[in-house]
Amino acid sequence: MGQITAEMVKELRQATGSGIMDCKKVLAEADGDMEKAIDLLRKKGLAKAAKRAGRSTSEGIVYSYIHTGGKLGVLVEINCESDFVAKTDDFIEFAKNIAMHIAAANPAGLTRDDVDASLVEREKEIYKAQMLEEGKPENMIDKIVEGKVEKFYKDVCLMSQQYIKDPQKSIDDLLQETIGKIGENIQIKRFARFQLGE
Amino acid sequence: MGQITAEMVKELRQATGSGIMDCKKVLAEADGDMEKAIDLLRKKGLAKAAKRAGRSTSEGIVYSYIHTGGKLGVLVEINCESDFVAKTDDFIEFAKNIAMHIAAANPAGLTRDDVDASLVEREKEIYKAQMLEEGKPENMIDKIVEGKVEKFYKDVCLMSQQYIKDPQKSIDDLLQETIGKIGENIQIKRFARFQLGE
Repeated sequence: MGQITAEMVKELRQATGSGIMDCKKVLAEADGDMEKAIDLLRKKGLAKAAKRAGRSTSEGIVYSYIHTGGKLGVLVEINCESDFVAKTDDFIEFAKNIAMHIAAANPAGLTRDDVDASLVEREKEIYKAQMLEEGKPENMIDKIVEGKVEKFYKDVCLMSQQYIKDPQKSIDDLLQETIGKIGENIQIKRFARFQLGE
Repeated sequence: MGQITAEMVKELRQATGSGIMDCKKVLAEADGDMEKAIDLLRKKGLAKAAKRAGRSTSEGIVYSYIHTGGKLGVLVEINCESDFVAKTDDFIEFAKNIAMHIAAANPAGLTRDDVDASLVEREKEIYKAQMLEEGKPENMIDKIVEGKVEKFYKDVCLMSQQYIKDPQKSIDDLLQETIGKIGENIQIKRFARFQLGE
């Protein structure tokens, strides 16, 4: 079994915001493997988050990010349960990361419900035409197109997008992690993204 | 005729951004009355603005205003003709004033085209019910309701709202003035306003 040093516990605490005892425990479980330990904590964080998912989020902040030069700006509303948490650095940091992600990744909506149906129809038509062009048998095309549409939604919806600063995670993963770390239910309620000349 | 001093010309120039000769001329025309001189310049500004109205506005800035406490935020896109003007203090000041006005006055849209028709229908129903309640003759009601709807649009559309910092002007007046002062066509393109718990 790998040696669990105080340095490793400290590093894990800083990375995850979890308690000393939890960090020691998962590091032992993971044989000192930092990545594995983070995954274990994340799983525990997810368990915590699920319990919190029903709690009402009427507090929070409205946060803006203007990209250098002022040609691109984002406004987000992020909700939490208490005004106390809304004022913490961790929560504001989360809001900032979400705003910067939106600036960079340009999501079409929060979830698939927010994506314009005509946009999806257009994508479907393009996929179908591509398949026919490639000579794929017609009876396979619908299934392939369905898969492509799933991929399309994953790429354009904020919650399922790969997080720009850490593509191993989705934005939903980041949200669940933050809920676990902060200990309150959190919701990304809405966003606006204005780019000059769009 | 009142005496036109260099001091007055300077004051008028600072207030309006107009040239020395224009300021001298309108001050003479207005018999040294500063308010009247500003009105005269505004009228000339309007004439200038009308000439500029057709020019394309593909430059500009995205500007945000977050109200103290972070519970209310506004994002606006303001367009102008050149990137040079987009970087001037006067233009940025205009964007800031518009963002703060939107935060305070909570417009429903830019112009009446942006106002949800069902919102207007609801207002109409309320007006009609009020008139009937007051015992107004039915044949007058439609005319009165029409007037009330006009007033409603004026109050909820950004361009026709009274400017918070100077209720004598509408936002459109402020826009035309700024066009006259800056010398480029300017357009308030879009805005988003998020208030917590809305």
